[in-house]
Amino acid sequence: MTLKPIGVIRAPFLEAKETPIQAALCPSAEALIELFPEFVPGLKDLEGFDRVWILCWLHQAAPARMVITPFLDDREHGVFATRSPSRPNPISLSCVRLLSVNANSLRIGGVDMLDQTPVLDIKPYVPAFDSFESKRIGWFENKELHPFRADNRFQLPH
Amino acid sequence: MTLKPIGVIRAPFLEAKETPIQAALCPSAEALIELFPEFVPGLKDLEGFDRVWILCWLHQAAPARMVITPFLDDREHGVFATRSPSRPNPISLSCVRLLSVNANSLRIGGVDMLDQTPVLDIKPYVPAFDSFESKRIGWFENKELHPFRADNRFQLPH
Repeated sequence: MTLKPIGVIRAPFLEAKETPIQAALCPSAEALIELFPEFVPGLKDLEGFDRVWILCWLHQAAPARMVITPFLDDREHGVFATRSPSRPNPISLSCVRLLSVNANSLRIGGVDMLDQTPVLDIKPYVPAFDSFESKRIGWFENKELHPFRADNRFQLPH
Repeated sequence: MTLKPIGVIRAPFLEAKETPIQAALCPSAEALIELFPEFVPGLKDLEGFDRVWILCWLHQAAPARMVITPFLDDREHGVFATRSPSRPNPISLSCVRLLSVNANSLRIGGVDMLDQTPVLDIKPYVPAFDSFESKRIGWFENKELHPFRADNRFQLPH
């Protein structure tokens, strides 16, 4: 189970501190994905989608702990009940707007990734597969989500 | 960038043929996730969520090609414009109903995973982060999605 990056994120965020904690919470932030040449043919027909999932390898995430205090609460929760970047497999999941596809690069909007983050996968966002009502959202209930930026608590020390 | 499984899927589907092509398309199918002991503390407070994302390593997927004919169409598309299991990094993304959490196992509903599939991550489904209207869905537009089962075209030969 070894991963190979398919490309890299070019974003204005250089460290976790002040980076949006979720793609959906900062719709105005834009980034580029630069795809490596061997993967560019895989973009065929992607321009027809409003939104895409971006899966990244969180190369700056500190080692996982199983119980953590997330950005949006002051109480501890199990890591799998949070969207914390420090996870046993530090894979992020971000639903972003697809602004344009140009040769080997994608311009995306609503981003929460650090510059230089390795990209693992791109999948089309299909509401029939991905969009659900969900009444019970655990400890997220009644949390104020906007606006919220990260701090360095889950980042590797420099 | 090396992955470690956090657990394993126990599901009624033994090969790709006849397995649902997407979790959302077979709400009646149920499975268990058996978590390995070191990761069980990470489940704290997960029972408060109706839905969770399951990320798996598609151990049965054949090597990726960049342009493929997906299950739902008879024309070729770039792999990143499809949800095909054969991808450069064969990581699946399934939004499932969380039916119960019991010690080291989760019962989930609406599944599309093969038995014995390694689980990489569990994340809570939070509509503010994950649920979006999306008008432009590329080649999926006007496709009949229900019911649809896979065949073995993306599976490793036995």
